[in-house]
Amino acid sequence: MSLSFATATHSNVLETTPTSKSNIKTPNQQSTIATPLPNPSLQVTADHQLKQVDAPVFAPGPGEVLLHIKAAGVCGSDIHFWKTGRIGPLVVEGDFILGHEAAGVVLRCGEGVTSLKPGVPCGQCFLCMDGRYNLCEDVQFAGVYPYHGTIQRYKVHPAKWCHKLPFNISFSEGALLEPLSVVLYGIKSSGLSLGRGAVICGAGPIGLIALVAARASGAHPLVITDLKPRRLEFARKFVPTCLTYLVDRDLDAEGNAKRIKRLFGEENEEYFAPDTILECTGVESSVVTAAITCRRGGTVMVIGVGKSVMNNLLFMHLSLAEINLRFINRYRDTWLAGLQCLGGGIMDLKPLVTHVYPLERALEALHTCGDLSNESIKVHIVDEVDDFL
Amino acid sequence: MSLSFATATHSNVLETTPTSKSNIKTPNQQSTIATPLPNPSLQVTADHQLKQVDAPVFAPGPGEVLLHIKAAGVCGSDIHFWKTGRIGPLVVEGDFILGHEAAGVVLRCGEGVTSLKPGVPCGQCFLCMDGRYNLCEDVQFAGVYPYHGTIQRYKVHPAKWCHKLPFNISFSEGALLEPLSVVLYGIKSSGLSLGRGAVICGAGPIGLIALVAARASGAHPLVITDLKPRRLEFARKFVPTCLTYLVDRDLDAEGNAKRIKRLFGEENEEYFAPDTILECTGVESSVVTAAITCRRGGTVMVIGVGKSVMNNLLFMHLSLAEINLRFINRYRDTWLAGLQCLGGGIMDLKPLVTHVYPLERALEALHTCGDLSNESIKVHIVDEVDDFL
Amino acid sequence: MSLSFATATHSNVLETTPTSKSNIKTPNQQSTIATPLPNPSLQVTADHQLKQVDAPVFAPGPGEVLLHIKAAGVCGSDIHFWKTGRIGPLVVEGDFILGHEAAGVVLRCGEGVTSLKPGVPCGQCFLCMDGRYNLCEDVQFAGVYPYHGTIQRYKVHPAKWCHKLPFNISFSEGALLEPLSVVLYGIKSSGLSLGRGAVICGAGPIGLIALVAARASGAHPLVITDLKPRRLEFARKFVPTCLTYLVDRDLDAEGNAKRIKRLFGEENEEYFAPDTILECTGVESSVVTAAITCRRGGTVMVIGVGKSVMNNLLFMHLSLAEINLRFINRYRDTWLAGLQCLGGGIMDLKPLVTHVYPLERALEALHTCGDLSNESIKVHIVDEVDDFL
Amino acid sequence: MSLSFATATHSNVLETTPTSKSNIKTPNQQSTIATPLPNPSLQVTADHQLKQVDAPVFAPGPGEVLLHIKAAGVCGSDIHFWKTGRIGPLVVEGDFILGHEAAGVVLRCGEGVTSLKPGVPCGQCFLCMDGRYNLCEDVQFAGVYPYHGTIQRYKVHPAKWCHKLPFNISFSEGALLEPLSVVLYGIKSSGLSLGRGAVICGAGPIGLIALVAARASGAHPLVITDLKPRRLEFARKFVPTCLTYLVDRDLDAEGNAKRIKRLFGEENEEYFAPDTILECTGVESSVVTAAITCRRGGTVMVIGVGKSVMNNLLFMHLSLAEINLRFINRYRDTWLAGLQCLGGGIMDLKPLVTHVYPLERALEALHTCGDLSNESIKVHIVDEVDDFL
Repeated sequence: MSLSFATATHSNVLETTPTSKSNIKTPNQQSTIATPLPNPSLQVTADHQLKQVDAPVFAPGPGEVLLHIKAAGVCGSDIHFWKTGRIGPLVVEGDFILGHEAAGVVLRCGEGVTSLKPGVPCGQCFLCMDGRYNLCEDVQFAGVYPYHGTIQRYKVHPAKWCHKLPFNISFSEGALLEPLSVVLYGIKSSGLSLGRGAVICGAGPIGLIALVAARASGAHPLVITDLKPRRLEFARKFVPTCLTYLVDRDLDAEGNAKRIKRLFGEENEEYFAPDTILECTGVESSVVTAAITCRRGGTVMVIGVGKSVMNNLLFMHLSLAEINLRFINRYRDTWLAGLQCLGGGIMDLKPLVTHVYPLERALEALHTCGDLSNESIKVHIVDEVDDFL
Repeated sequence: MSLSFATATHSNVLETTPTSKSNIKTPNQQSTIATPLPNPSLQVTADHQLKQVDAPVFAPGPGEVLLHIKAAGVCGSDIHFWKTGRIGPLVVEGDFILGHEAAGVVLRCGEGVTSLKPGVPCGQCFLCMDGRYNLCEDVQFAGVYPYHGTIQRYKVHPAKWCHKLPFNISFSEGALLEPLSVVLYGIKSSGLSLGRGAVICGAGPIGLIALVAARASGAHPLVITDLKPRRLEFARKFVPTCLTYLVDRDLDAEGNAKRIKRLFGEENEEYFAPDTILECTGVESSVVTAAITCRRGGTVMVIGVGKSVMNNLLFMHLSLAEINLRFINRYRDTWLAGLQCLGGGIMDLKPLVTHVYPLERALEALHTCGDLSNESIKVHIVDEVDDFL
Repeated sequence: MSLSFATATHSNVLETTPTSKSNIKTPNQQSTIATPLPNPSLQVTADHQLKQVDAPVFAPGPGEVLLHIKAAGVCGSDIHFWKTGRIGPLVVEGDFILGHEAAGVVLRCGEGVTSLKPGVPCGQCFLCMDGRYNLCEDVQFAGVYPYHGTIQRYKVHPAKWCHKLPFNISFSEGALLEPLSVVLYGIKSSGLSLGRGAVICGAGPIGLIALVAARASGAHPLVITDLKPRRLEFARKFVPTCLTYLVDRDLDAEGNAKRIKRLFGEENEEYFAPDTILECTGVESSVVTAAITCRRGGTVMVIGVGKSVMNNLLFMHLSLAEINLRFINRYRDTWLAGLQCLGGGIMDLKPLVTHVYPLERALEALHTCGDLSNESIKVHIVDEVDDFL
Repeated sequence: MSLSFATATHSNVLETTPTSKSNIKTPNQQSTIATPLPNPSLQVTADHQLKQVDAPVFAPGPGEVLLHIKAAGVCGSDIHFWKTGRIGPLVVEGDFILGHEAAGVVLRCGEGVTSLKPGVPCGQCFLCMDGRYNLCEDVQFAGVYPYHGTIQRYKVHPAKWCHKLPFNISFSEGALLEPLSVVLYGIKSSGLSLGRGAVICGAGPIGLIALVAARASGAHPLVITDLKPRRLEFARKFVPTCLTYLVDRDLDAEGNAKRIKRLFGEENEEYFAPDTILECTGVESSVVTAAITCRRGGTVMVIGVGKSVMNNLLFMHLSLAEINLRFINRYRDTWLAGLQCLGGGIMDLKPLVTHVYPLERALEALHTCGDLSNESIKVHIVDEVDDFL
């Protein structure tokens, strides 16, 4: 490394968005290197099995760094890849390593890497050039088939997509920066603002991060909705000033919307209605409810990703109430804000990590996350061994 | 009238958006007045019949003017009220006068009306106060049940919603300002811009106005789509530099979208793809096609209003391509721009008026517009009698 | 009052923006009424004197309410009117009552007032109609010559510009909603956002409110600047996580800007530079410093109002760094957010009230505020007498 | 070249923004190549002299192309470099080749260049990554000291910053894409829109392009101002529907602003006032006039670059009227729009080229442009020799 990063103990976090081309699939053109420890990686197979096997460790190429992953989060999409074998058009056709939420330590630098100064470059297409790299069609997102992910010990990653962690952010928090990025981008695009009401649909990991981030943005009042009382209970402990609404399966979208709206004020209902809905479930009925709950002229920001097709959207209502229905794809330009939020104490995401497993028990971590009866929020896989490469 | 409008021959156009409370239903509290001519009005009944009967003429109240309607357009929504008896939640439960596109002459002023200076006030709710009067829930839109419309000879209307026509705009053009307003607001909200490509879905009256307005905005290239070759032929004559695409009923949305996109450039398809889609049909399959045709990160502006519910929306595509799906309700703050567009020769809408009937033959006008085999674009009802009240 | 506001003890706050025409100067067409107590009002004269004299109390006209002012703030502009006799084009040519930050109780309603439902209407011009009522040229702002202000016991005010105070906001906090509105509007227009850095120039009342509001918005890091160490000390107590910078009079704008920027990060200075500067002094050298401190492509929001003419603006730097230089005039559409911020505990402004005087000692209040050596932040004038009109 | 660009006769235009590092100063690490013709280049020296001398021709490095410049424009900033020896902080300290508006032919491709597909990549800093490459601090702008420019026969340039010219855009028009880009970016940032009024200050090359681009955007009415009657005469011929205003040196800013505003409508002056001012002179008095002319709440877009320091800005007016004062630095993401504007016939810039010189007489071209009495608008230097490298 360069002098400014004199030791390998500097901690870093990965922005996993576009990984380098040298990182694809089996990088057989790259030489492997020996490491003091094996590299147990968590893989999903084409026939929907999980397995943990030692994967080869590659030497970092030009512009790349070799990382020791110290903490990695398990995301719903990891479970989805495992259980259904696909996400939208991406079908798992061979073994690949899961994971895209990670933080770790830089062990070795490839040629030309002199710093991890943040905000280094992007790709090659017009979308990258326009700053919208999240929409790049050639993006190589680590942990999305066919690009290997971060649930392993050693990973090669482009230096330019690694962000230096300040001294007061732990690896575990670092691994939360990826889902936080999704939320920060969604909030920025939604127009959420200080002193104005908002609803968060869904009290899963993304919904809870959206809740605490909306609180940190000064939005008020805040209502979070879910189908499960336990999740709402978690939400109330996490952000005590929020209001919660248990979605009633016996009511239709209009019925639920009416009740949610009332939480903002009994009289003069439309005036007090929430300007912004952060939809974090991707479930059709929730999106439909969101569109009815929203104040006339407001924004429904669809952060959750759902099925390929959505039905039952209330077309005429969207027109008459002039609802802005926005969608996002991951995030862009959010890592500085995320680091400053966590490093500056603007929000505390640590309570979200409800389960922690060592790397060797990664399979168990996936099973815990995949079984809803465990009521996990965020499951982390950590690797506390020291490593002097 | 006040001194600044010394004669009754000053021509004016109505912004029909929010009419005054005194204008509702049967204003039985208002006194009627005698007029030199009868007031033949075109009415739709609760049992889906049309009839033309003489309606009473009311004296203008405070802040109101009495108008002689010189030209009135027939809109698809008039036909809809007639044939289906409703638009969304609004059901025709009694006789009411159709029409909401009109221009005419001020015959008499009510108390307190000293000028028609443009841009006079709004309503009373928070949406009006915020400048979004088009979203006002108490709007009284002339020609939408239960508020009487403009297909009659004499109409009382609030002075503040009348805009003075400059000398070089005819009554017929004046009656086109209402649909032009819809388009201007849609274009402004869509982010359409100089030198960037756009698609207009639907070559009916709104689609054709959108086409000529997009051309006047410098958007390029422009593609307009429709199911009917004759309408596309009309479009090519109206805006010779546009490209046209005949929607293929045998193809699905993806198939049609692929072909439309190719019109913007064979190679590097996404780079040249249109940033903006102006959807002017309100038909589900057209909205779905629009969302696939749009450039990644672009905007689908839904101007057309359709059924209550929309199905088959490609949810995952909207997320991955980050399509901004916007809806509008009529228009706001567009009349100055509309008047300047027509008065300044920025666009010429006159060719859109394909059929003209005198007021006495208003029933025939409705039947012409309602029968698609007539291939009318815009049917106008005019009243050329002179009137010295 | 209407049934929904059954008693006169409902507390209310004034949005003083556009007062009714009936409120102007000496409303000699209005009848006066007898009150149990006199109406001691604080007036400034054309020859720059202050005096406290009993003013007549008027009966509320249609759409108006008679208020008992319970708390009123003194603002720098009040001092300015007193000491210089003008603000910009507005010259004090006769006695008028000062004050535009107030909260109180509705004593009596004029004709047609049935509720204080928030967000009632606006004025008559195109700017009002477009929701930009703060830019209205005919605005009648209470407490700005020639419109009488709120430093008196009884005041008639349009009902539609009064906002209902929730049970948990005191009169004193209510009187802080006016300066909070200025800040909320400035912050919304500035693009300030969660996790991104900001500088607040000036630690006077507006600067301190901007500081706490920026903190409530999750902006981070925050630096506040001032010439006086005591004010910065106050800021650190008020918002402990802020950084402070004592402006060095011996350095030029570039020198001070360089030092401020370094507080955001020693290395990679431009990357960490603040996106947003909230300029709250209106002093030329501070605006110039702000423009240099700001991140390339960022926004300098000029909230402070200063002299008529500004010199020494670094034109070429503004172009090369593409600084967006925005100005605001008061506020619009901020009262709902302000009420929700204070009622919801999103921020606490009470510590800003450093001095409190009873109405009878209003002169003393003005002198305290006008003498900088007193180091007052916000001086309030309160009236704790009960009143049963 | 790649198969998709089989011959060297494909014409191309340079986006001169960030040139490659290999292009800087004297690229002594690059090998020179022999060409059939000499490379007469127009250079400015440290002591403010112009000279035309043969420059070496370099072999294109990886990612670069060797171009034959067929047309090059002379810009005011070229004259400025020559006569004053600097632009802002950039001081001419050695000989360098002028020119940054050019079009030509690709003669030879460096390693890895397989196409000129538009919208290829950007630089390395956070601003580039965010799509704001025009604000990059390490930009290497050809023709701005110390980076050699385009007034020569052969130039090496990064392929990714070359845009393919369609068959119907001439080299001369191609060389106008650079100033058009400045205008397109300014117009997009200004919010100029269909049917709304605008003022263009200054009828020089940028002002005239702004005029025709504003007309192509449908803005109306349009007023262009200048101090010279001949320039306004040129403007009227170029865009016959514009109005012109001869700035009166005997009036102050307020006096001129008042007269300009009246051109938009005698009565109801503020309602009809222009929403957008495109300031294309960079002269202080013109910026001040612009700020007074602008409609309340409107935007003054400062496109012209002027002196380092600006004085006499009407601070209080900017606040009270809430004028948005925006500045731009060159352009970003404008070349697709520019190509489509010219290729699609949306505007015709050819009349702006008033003087044409062969490359061998480049010195004369500079002298023509530099002497205002010649009343040149745009001077082009062309090279019509054929070249088969």
